[in-house]
Amino acid sequence: MTIGRLNHVGMATPSIEASLAVYRDMLGAAVGEPFDLPAQGVRVCFVDLPNTQIELIEPLGDASPIHGFLRKNPAGGQHHVCFEVDDIAVAVADMTAKGARVLGAPRIGAHGTLVVFLHPKDMGGVLVELMEAPGAGH
Amino acid sequence: MTIGRLNHVGMATPSIEASLAVYRDMLGAAVGEPFDLPAQGVRVCFVDLPNTQIELIEPLGDASPIHGFLRKNPAGGQHHVCFEVDDIAVAVADMTAKGARVLGAPRIGAHGTLVVFLHPKDMGGVLVELMEAPGAGH
Repeated sequence: MTIGRLNHVGMATPSIEASLAVYRDMLGAAVGEPFDLPAQGVRVCFVDLPNTQIELIEPLGDASPIHGFLRKNPAGGQHHVCFEVDDIAVAVADMTAKGARVLGAPRIGAHGTLVVFLHPKDMGGVLVELMEAPGAGH
Repeated sequence: MTIGRLNHVGMATPSIEASLAVYRDMLGAAVGEPFDLPAQGVRVCFVDLPNTQIELIEPLGDASPIHGFLRKNPAGGQHHVCFEVDDIAVAVADMTAKGARVLGAPRIGAHGTLVVFLHPKDMGGVLVELMEAPGAGH
């Protein structure tokens, strides 16, 4: 397996509106509309850069997995990076064979394709998301 | 001012060799050769993705600014994001006018162009580096 593009950098924030204002008003970037992903317990908004995206994520609901991160980092911060792969099943098999812990079964991510997360302890302390590339045809 | 490309994501690590092995051997990415940046107190290595780079940074010397991050995150983790700008002086003036704290004067970064850092408290908890784009001609 070889990772492809950096699809996005995930930034956790206590307030998508406040973070959107930073990217739009201070840094001059193009931002999208926030939307809810109830199955993942997050509210999401993408910031468009010429070569990749920033994914702003705010907790949605009491069981959101983002609450723990924000307890440790109340102001928000860099939460994960997402790399594209051609085939999520091949990626999961390859990662497992190489000893990286895959966190759960593939599920539909914010771009409508299958994603999985890899344990930070196997990735140099970084939470890594693998996303089947949009248009990969699987 | 408008930010341009995401030049790189900076990942702090206690061991560049261990992190390189993750990107090269587990994730199949192309990695460069590590090199020292004594003026910044870091050892650096870039991982090449099709659309951007990962910058692995390891402390170099007792005064390295990375020691504090690794005390809080011993396994390593996401440290900063770097956005390209056309003109670093224009960017510094614009950020200052908008009330973002610019950390120090521009200095030469890992790609040989001028860079500055912005205070995480003004950037949604994220340490943001602005880099004059290579080839911008200033």
